[in-house]
Amino acid sequence: MAVTGAPELLIVMGAAATAEQIDDVVTRLQEAGCDALVTPGREATVIGAIGERELLAALPLEGYAGVEQVLPILKPYKLVSRELSPDPTVIEARGRRIGDGYFGFIAGPCTVEYREQTMETARAVAAAGVTMLRGGAFKPRTSPYTFQGLGNEALEILAEAREETGLPLVTELMDPRHVEQVVDTTDVIQIGARNMSNFSLLEEVGRARKPVLLKRGPSSTVEELLMAAEYIVKEGNSQVILCERGIKTFEPSMRYTLDIGAIPVLKQETHLPVIVDPSHAAGKRDYVPSLAHAGMAAGAHGVIVEVHYNPSEAQCDGPQALLPEVFKELMVQLKQVAAVCKEEFVEAGELAHA
Amino acid sequence: MAVTGAPELLIVMGAAATAEQIDDVVTRLQEAGCDALVTPGREATVIGAIGERELLAALPLEGYAGVEQVLPILKPYKLVSRELSPDPTVIEARGRRIGDGYFGFIAGPCTVEYREQTMETARAVAAAGVTMLRGGAFKPRTSPYTFQGLGNEALEILAEAREETGLPLVTELMDPRHVEQVVDTTDVIQIGARNMSNFSLLEEVGRARKPVLLKRGPSSTVEELLMAAEYIVKEGNSQVILCERGIKTFEPSMRYTLDIGAIPVLKQETHLPVIVDPSHAAGKRDYVPSLAHAGMAAGAHGVIVEVHYNPSEAQCDGPQALLPEVFKELMVQLKQVAAVCKEEFVEAGELAHA
Amino acid sequence: MAVTGAPELLIVMGAAATAEQIDDVVTRLQEAGCDALVTPGREATVIGAIGERELLAALPLEGYAGVEQVLPILKPYKLVSRELSPDPTVIEARGRRIGDGYFGFIAGPCTVEYREQTMETARAVAAAGVTMLRGGAFKPRTSPYTFQGLGNEALEILAEAREETGLPLVTELMDPRHVEQVVDTTDVIQIGARNMSNFSLLEEVGRARKPVLLKRGPSSTVEELLMAAEYIVKEGNSQVILCERGIKTFEPSMRYTLDIGAIPVLKQETHLPVIVDPSHAAGKRDYVPSLAHAGMAAGAHGVIVEVHYNPSEAQCDGPQALLPEVFKELMVQLKQVAAVCKEEFVEAGELAHA
Amino acid sequence: MAVTGAPELLIVMGAAATAEQIDDVVTRLQEAGCDALVTPGREATVIGAIGERELLAALPLEGYAGVEQVLPILKPYKLVSRELSPDPTVIEARGRRIGDGYFGFIAGPCTVEYREQTMETARAVAAAGVTMLRGGAFKPRTSPYTFQGLGNEALEILAEAREETGLPLVTELMDPRHVEQVVDTTDVIQIGARNMSNFSLLEEVGRARKPVLLKRGPSSTVEELLMAAEYIVKEGNSQVILCERGIKTFEPSMRYTLDIGAIPVLKQETHLPVIVDPSHAAGKRDYVPSLAHAGMAAGAHGVIVEVHYNPSEAQCDGPQALLPEVFKELMVQLKQVAAVCKEEFVEAGELAHA
Repeated sequence: MAVTGAPELLIVMGAAATAEQIDDVVTRLQEAGCDALVTPGREATVIGAIGERELLAALPLEGYAGVEQVLPILKPYKLVSRELSPDPTVIEARGRRIGDGYFGFIAGPCTVEYREQTMETARAVAAAGVTMLRGGAFKPRTSPYTFQGLGNEALEILAEAREETGLPLVTELMDPRHVEQVVDTTDVIQIGARNMSNFSLLEEVGRARKPVLLKRGPSSTVEELLMAAEYIVKEGNSQVILCERGIKTFEPSMRYTLDIGAIPVLKQETHLPVIVDPSHAAGKRDYVPSLAHAGMAAGAHGVIVEVHYNPSEAQCDGPQALLPEVFKELMVQLKQVAAVCKEEFVEAGELAHA
Repeated sequence: MAVTGAPELLIVMGAAATAEQIDDVVTRLQEAGCDALVTPGREATVIGAIGERELLAALPLEGYAGVEQVLPILKPYKLVSRELSPDPTVIEARGRRIGDGYFGFIAGPCTVEYREQTMETARAVAAAGVTMLRGGAFKPRTSPYTFQGLGNEALEILAEAREETGLPLVTELMDPRHVEQVVDTTDVIQIGARNMSNFSLLEEVGRARKPVLLKRGPSSTVEELLMAAEYIVKEGNSQVILCERGIKTFEPSMRYTLDIGAIPVLKQETHLPVIVDPSHAAGKRDYVPSLAHAGMAAGAHGVIVEVHYNPSEAQCDGPQALLPEVFKELMVQLKQVAAVCKEEFVEAGELAHA
Repeated sequence: MAVTGAPELLIVMGAAATAEQIDDVVTRLQEAGCDALVTPGREATVIGAIGERELLAALPLEGYAGVEQVLPILKPYKLVSRELSPDPTVIEARGRRIGDGYFGFIAGPCTVEYREQTMETARAVAAAGVTMLRGGAFKPRTSPYTFQGLGNEALEILAEAREETGLPLVTELMDPRHVEQVVDTTDVIQIGARNMSNFSLLEEVGRARKPVLLKRGPSSTVEELLMAAEYIVKEGNSQVILCERGIKTFEPSMRYTLDIGAIPVLKQETHLPVIVDPSHAAGKRDYVPSLAHAGMAAGAHGVIVEVHYNPSEAQCDGPQALLPEVFKELMVQLKQVAAVCKEEFVEAGELAHA
Repeated sequence: MAVTGAPELLIVMGAAATAEQIDDVVTRLQEAGCDALVTPGREATVIGAIGERELLAALPLEGYAGVEQVLPILKPYKLVSRELSPDPTVIEARGRRIGDGYFGFIAGPCTVEYREQTMETARAVAAAGVTMLRGGAFKPRTSPYTFQGLGNEALEILAEAREETGLPLVTELMDPRHVEQVVDTTDVIQIGARNMSNFSLLEEVGRARKPVLLKRGPSSTVEELLMAAEYIVKEGNSQVILCERGIKTFEPSMRYTLDIGAIPVLKQETHLPVIVDPSHAAGKRDYVPSLAHAGMAAGAHGVIVEVHYNPSEAQCDGPQALLPEVFKELMVQLKQVAAVCKEEFVEAGELAHA
C-alpha cells in the first residue's frame, strides 16, 4: 500500500448504493494496485481513487454496481502531457524544425494531379521560403465519384519535387497497407482528420521512424486528439505535430469552425507542437489569411496551407487554394504576428546553425 | 445535345464574373458530357448543369473562376437512392431478415471478454428471440490504456456461440488487414462509427460477399452516411444496413444525441434498411428502453442493443448494457410499438416460410 | 456544525494551491452557512462543500484563489427536481389535464392570420379530440421583413375560437409589457424557445396564475431548461409544462435535431410534465408523424403540433403544418403508442369525471 | 413589369409539381410586385424570383403547393449589408470611436458589485488607455439563486465612474421596461447574447438614440446575427457594433468555442464594426490573451474584456476576469497585432483631432 497522494478520480456512489457495493469498489481498486479514500455521506459517498493512470484507465469503473458518476481530476493522457514532460518537443525533418520557437510553414497543393502542377507549385512555395512541402497522393473523399488521388504515381512526383527543392515532404497515409511505401517516400506522415480515431493506423505510425502530423477529427474533442497522440507516442514515436483544422458546428458560413481556443488549450496541456490548417477550415480562399493570422496570434507553432499554381484547374479543393504570390505575402505577415505574440522567434523552421 | 431534363446543380456566377468566365464554365460542362442552361442577370448569372450525377460529381465546379455558389438540386448519391431504386432492400443472413417489414433485433455483449460471458449472454438473447448476435472482437477505444478486445480468440468464441444458438453473427471490422479472418467468421460485417469515413475499409467490404452493418459517424450528416453506403454498394455489395447511433452535440446528459429524425429522412431517401443503436447513444442503461421505443416508433427496421449477463463485470460499456431479462421484456414492447407504427409486421427477422 | 451529509460540490484545489488558499475556501464556505470536508493530497486537495444548494449556488467558488475545478455532485435545481418532490405534477386548464398519465394533444395554427383560418382550424382540431388549442398572436421571426403576427386582434379571434370549441388556449408571450393582455386571454402561457433564457419574462410568468408551457431553447441543455423552469417555480407558479422542440446541430436534413433523449432524462429529473413539438423540429410536414410517434414512445406526456386548414396559404411555417385530417389520424396512432409504452393511460387530457 | 435583373431566390418545384402549381407560384410572385423566370425541366422546374428582398421575404414561398426547395442567391439582410452600403460604419460615443481603423478596447467588471470595486477597476482600465468602460447592472444568470446585479444602484455607480474617468459607458439592457433608465445612463446599450433573438428588445433599442453593442447568441448563425442587427437598423438606429463571443459546440475545454471565422465573414458581409469578447468564450483567464490576440489578428475592430481589481472576490465570472496590470500589457500587444494585420491603425478609439 505504498500508494499515496491525491486522487486521480472521484467515484460518486449513488444515494442507494449499499455498504457492500462501496466495499466492492474499494476491493477492486486495491486488487488493481490502486488505493481508495472513502468519504462517507448521507446522500452520496465519494471514493477517491489513487494510483497510476494507466491502471485506473484499465478499470471499467462506471459499470461497477452502485457507481453514479466518475469525476476525473487528472487528465487521462500521460506521455503527451506537459505536466509529466514539461520540455517542449521539437520536430525535425531534413534539417527543418517545428516547435518551441521554430515556426513551421507547410504549403503545397491539396493533391498531386500531374507532374507540372506539383513541380510548379513546389518551386513557388520553396521560393516563398516554406519549411515543408505538402501534397496528397491518396485522398479521402466523401463521394466515391470524385478524384481519389494518383497513389504511387503521386509519391514519385513528390519525391522529384523534394529532390529539386530540398523541402521535406508531408503526405497523408490512409491505409495501414500503404505504410511501407508512404513511410519510405515521405519525411512527415500525415494522419488526416477522418482517420484521427483509426487506432490501427495510429499504432502503425507509432512504430514508424518518421514524424507524424496528426490532424484533429472534425468532431473530436481536444482531449480525444491528445489521446490519439498518446496512441502514437505509446508505440515509441514521440515525434508528433498536432493540427487544428476546424470542427463541425451548426454555423454554415465556413466549411468547418476553426476552434482557435484549441491552440492555447493544447499548448497548456502538451509539449507537442501545434499548428493550424486554415485552408480546410475556411473552404474558401478569401478567409484563409484571417484564419492563418488568428492561428499564429493564438500561439500556434505554424500553419499548413493549400497553395496551387492554378486553383481554377484544381481537381480538389480549388476554392480554398491560395495563389503562390498571395501565400508569399501571407508568410511575411505571419512571421510578424508570431514575433508580436511573443513565442521566441527563430527563422522559419531552418536550423540556426545549418 | 442529347442531354435533356432539369438541372442537377445550379451554378451561381458572382456579380463580378465576366462573360469569358461564364463561357468557360459552360465549355467545361460540355466537355465533360454534360449540358448547361444559362439564365443571365444583372447581379448574378445562374447556370443550370444537366447530366449524369457521377459526371457532375467528378467536376470541381466550385473552384472554377467566377463561380460563387453551387446549389445542388438533386442528391449526390445514386445507387442507394430510393428515387432511382424504389424497391426496399431486405438483408438476409442464415435465414434471418431485416428490412421491408422484417424487424431485426440484434443483441449481445459489447465485447467478447471470455468464453462463459459470451456463451451465457448469447444463450440469453437467443432465448429472448433475437434476430442476430452481436459481439466485438476488435474494439476501437479512445484510450490506449483500456481493453482493446481479444481479437482472433474472440472470433473463435463467437463462432462457438453461433454454432450453439444458430444465430447469425455481427462483428466489427476495424482494419483492412483483418478482412479475411473477420469476413470468414462473421455473417454481417459491422463498420463502426469511427470508421464510417474510412474509405479504404468501405471499399474492402464493398468487395466482400457478406452483408454490412454501417454505423453513422458521430459527426457525419445523413447525406455523408448515404455517401459512405454508396462507396460500399458501388463496389458491388448492395447488402447494407444503416445504423443511427447518436451524434455529437453540446448536450451532455447522454453520451451522444440520438438523431431520431434521421430515421424518417433515411427511410425517405434510401431503399436500405435502417436500425437504431440506443445503447451507444444513451451510454447508460436506464435510458436505453426509451430510445429503443422511440427508434421503432420513428420507423426503424430494428435495433442493436448491448446485453451482458453481468454488466458490473463488463470490461467495456458496462453501464449501458441491459440484463437479459430486461432486454427480453423490451423486445415484447418493441414489437408492439412496431405494430402500431404501421410498417407491415412480420415475425422478427425469421423467414415466414422457414 | 449542524450541517451534515454528503457534499453537493467537490472543489479541487490546484497542485500549486497554498494552505492559506485552502483555509480561505473553507472559511468562505463556513461564513456562508455551509460546511467543508477537506481531503488533502500531494498533487491536489479536494474540498467537499456541504450545505443548502441555494447557498452554495450563490457562492462564486470558481473564482476563489487556488481553485482549479468545481465538480457538482447534486444537481443545481431544487423546486423542479423529482428527487425533492417525487409526486408528478398534473397541469389543469378548463378541465383538461396534462401529466401523470394524462396525455396532452395541443394543436392549431402557427399564427392567427385571419378569423376564418383560425375558426376553421380550431373546429377541425376540436373535432379530432385535442386537449388544447394553440395559436400565435405575437410571433418572433428571424427576419424583420416577415409577418410578425396580428397582436391583440389575434387574441380576440382566439378568444372566439375558445368560446365556440370549449378548448383551452395556449398562446405565446414574448414581451413583459404584454403580460396583462396575454394572461387575461389565454389559459396556458407559452414561452417560446428564443425566450427560454429571457429571465425577466420567466419571473413575470412565475407571478402569473396561469400554467406555463416552457419551450427549450435550441442551444440550451436539459439542465438549463430545468433552471429556467426553476425561475418560474421559484416565483410561486408551479404549473409548468416542459417542451422539447429540437436543438441546433450540424445536421441539416431537418430544421432542428429533436433531442429525443431529453424525454427520459427530463422524466427522471423532474416531476413536471414533458411534451414534444415535432413540427418545429421537422420544419417539414412529412417528418412530423414520425417525430410525434417517437416522442410518445420515448415517454412524453403529449405533443404540440401545428395544424392548418390550408397550409399552402399559411403566412408562417406552412411547410410544417398538417392538414386536419392527417392530424386526426395521427392522434389515433399516438394514443396507441402511448398505451404500449406503459404510462398508465387516461382519456386524452379530459377529466375522467367531467 | 419594370422588374429586371437576376433572381434573388430560386424556387425548385418538385418532380410531382403540376403546371397549375407552377402557374400559381408565378402568379403569387407577380401579385406581390415581384417577377418570375421559369426554367422548365423533366425532373424539376426552377423558378427564379426577382424583386425587392423585403417583398420576397414577406412571402411564405416554402409553403406553396408543389415547392420542394427555396435556394437563396442573395442574402436576406439589406440595411446592414456591405453590398448595399459599402462605406464602413464608425461608432462614436463621447468622442471615442470604433470601426474603420478605430480600434475599440472595452474593459471593466462583469458586474457592478459595490462602489469601490467598480471605481478601482474603472480607474485601472482608464489608466491602461481603454476606449470604453463596461459594467453590468442587470445580469442574466442561468440559476435564479446566483447574484442578479444591483440594478439601478449599479447604474448610479457606473455614472460616477464615467464622471471621474471620462470613459463612455457600456451596459446591458435585458428588459424593455428598463429602456428608459438604461438609455439615460449609458453611452452604449449592450444587448447580451441570450437576448440576441429578443425581437421586442431589438426594436426598442432600434428606436433609441444611442449606439448598440449586439452580442451574438451562442447558437445563432452569423446570418441570424446580421438579421438581428437588421431589426435594429430598420427602426432607425444604424449605430450597431457586432460582437462575437463564442458559440455552443461539443468541445468542453472552454465555456464556448470562439468562432474566429465569424470575423472575416462579418467584415465581408457588413459595414458595421465587429469586436470580440474573449472573456466569455474562454471562461478562464489564462486563455483570454490568446483569444484576444486571435480576434485582433483575424481583423476585429476591438475587444471587450472583463477586468476586476480583485477577481477572487468577484460575484460573477471571477475566473475569467483579468487583473488590471495583465490587461494593460495585453492592450499593448493587441495594438501591435492590429498594426501587423493591416487595418489602417488609428490611436485606440480616440478622435485623432480631439
